[in-house]
Amino acid sequence: MHISLCREHYVDRIRGIVSDTIKKFEMIMPNDRVLVAVSGGKDSLALWEILSTLGYHTDALFIDLGIEDYSEFCKRECYNFGKEIGGKLIIFDLKKEFGKSLMDVVAKSPRKACSVCGIIKRYIMNFVAVKKGYDALATGHTLDDEVAFLASNILRWDIVQISRQKPVLESWHPMLAKKVKPLCMLSDLEMMNYALALGIRVCEEKCPLSTNAFSPFMKKILNDIENRAPGTKKNFYREFLKNRSIFERTVIDDIKIMECENCGMPTVGKYCSFCKIMGFA
Amino acid sequence: MHISLCREHYVDRIRGIVSDTIKKFEMIMPNDRVLVAVSGGKDSLALWEILSTLGYHTDALFIDLGIEDYSEFCKRECYNFGKEIGGKLIIFDLKKEFGKSLMDVVAKSPRKACSVCGIIKRYIMNFVAVKKGYDALATGHTLDDEVAFLASNILRWDIVQISRQKPVLESWHPMLAKKVKPLCMLSDLEMMNYALALGIRVCEEKCPLSTNAFSPFMKKILNDIENRAPGTKKNFYREFLKNRSIFERTVIDDIKIMECENCGMPTVGKYCSFCKIMGFA
Repeated sequence: MHISLCREHYVDRIRGIVSDTIKKFEMIMPNDRVLVAVSGGKDSLALWEILSTLGYHTDALFIDLGIEDYSEFCKRECYNFGKEIGGKLIIFDLKKEFGKSLMDVVAKSPRKACSVCGIIKRYIMNFVAVKKGYDALATGHTLDDEVAFLASNILRWDIVQISRQKPVLESWHPMLAKKVKPLCMLSDLEMMNYALALGIRVCEEKCPLSTNAFSPFMKKILNDIENRAPGTKKNFYREFLKNRSIFERTVIDDIKIMECENCGMPTVGKYCSFCKIMGFA
Repeated sequence: MHISLCREHYVDRIRGIVSDTIKKFEMIMPNDRVLVAVSGGKDSLALWEILSTLGYHTDALFIDLGIEDYSEFCKRECYNFGKEIGGKLIIFDLKKEFGKSLMDVVAKSPRKACSVCGIIKRYIMNFVAVKKGYDALATGHTLDDEVAFLASNILRWDIVQISRQKPVLESWHPMLAKKVKPLCMLSDLEMMNYALALGIRVCEEKCPLSTNAFSPFMKKILNDIENRAPGTKKNFYREFLKNRSIFERTVIDDIKIMECENCGMPTVGKYCSFCKIMGFA
């Protein structure tokens, strides 16, 4: 944004952008029940607050992955924030529900912790949203997250991943929730300012399992470009969305969808990634 | 390259990569007459030397743009290098041939010097290659040049430019030369090492008109990524070439080609960019 605003109007403006994004991409209908995935970080907590303020029926989901003190700390942040804004928080405890914490799974997996965590979180978010009948699952992905992911996929020309990157992923199966990213037009910096303006605690705590991930590196690279040519990130993402369909046309999606023989969730193989990584299959 | 080679084998290896690139993309046929555009920099001079060594019938073209001492210095480098390798150098003096130096044109144009220079150089290179009947025009664009250009076009999603980026641009009109980039699979670093290995002077002289250009900045950005994830640049370019056609299918090239009313060269408007920028139209 290239305008100077006072605190109050800045807050209004950010909420307005989120509201416009939701309408433009038909993310949430007025009577929808929305589940917001919260991590304890500023972006997802701010998203929870914005959706509630905009009048959407919104509950939040925190997945307790069991990463020792870190998970405890994040859970407390989410809990306290929910109390402040008068929202309902669902806490899903991985170890209690499925017998293993993320630490247990990572210890036995050859994959990197961030990759294991991604599989587990995506599964649980969808699982809870579907089982509890929410109309949409909202995540706090910002413009910076989206462009970093897009740039990484383009560097590898991963056409399938590129073709699937959208602000909204419609549900195309009864066991798959509709997924929406209402912050996709706002940068990390804009969200940081929003959090500061509202006194939302900006947590400096870093996940102890995250080491040398590529995404923060790509974000830094894209910010270097942004500093040199302001507006690049937003324009890159906007123009991508206009041209996205050329990638879609290229991908021949003749993958046969099956049901995981362990949990029954849709998957492309005999078992889903979650059941495989959890050692259930 | 992830191997250690002595000087002699390193030189052979680079020449081998150029030779393979020429064959793979059908850039030059054995009896073709090739015109190499030389600037005085290490890449284009090395290209001249490599093509000659590989046995191609190769002459070189230096365009004297009249950028004061800088053009004089570059011309002398090319002249001396040609004498060393026993090659024929064509010197095209812009002011003598067309009455204006680049300095004269830049002074009267609202465009940036690099943009004006690009239009003039592209025109003259093609002009000389076509008028003197060469079968191909070779330029010293390296992998770094290609990926920086590609990345810049992707950041803007300039689909037309992306679809046109190829190691070979076939001639599709009698007045358009075939254009080839035999160094497109070699990085700036590899070419620097080649130049050092052969004692080709690596000139530190910078064009006095070039200020704050985007291309060197993008090269630096891409090298930051390369340092973090070695192999990225080559893989990015290779995978792009595999997937390039998806952009081509998108571009509807129903542009009507006309002849410039001043010079007769093919163009999309009444006058070509060169005649317009030179003030001839």
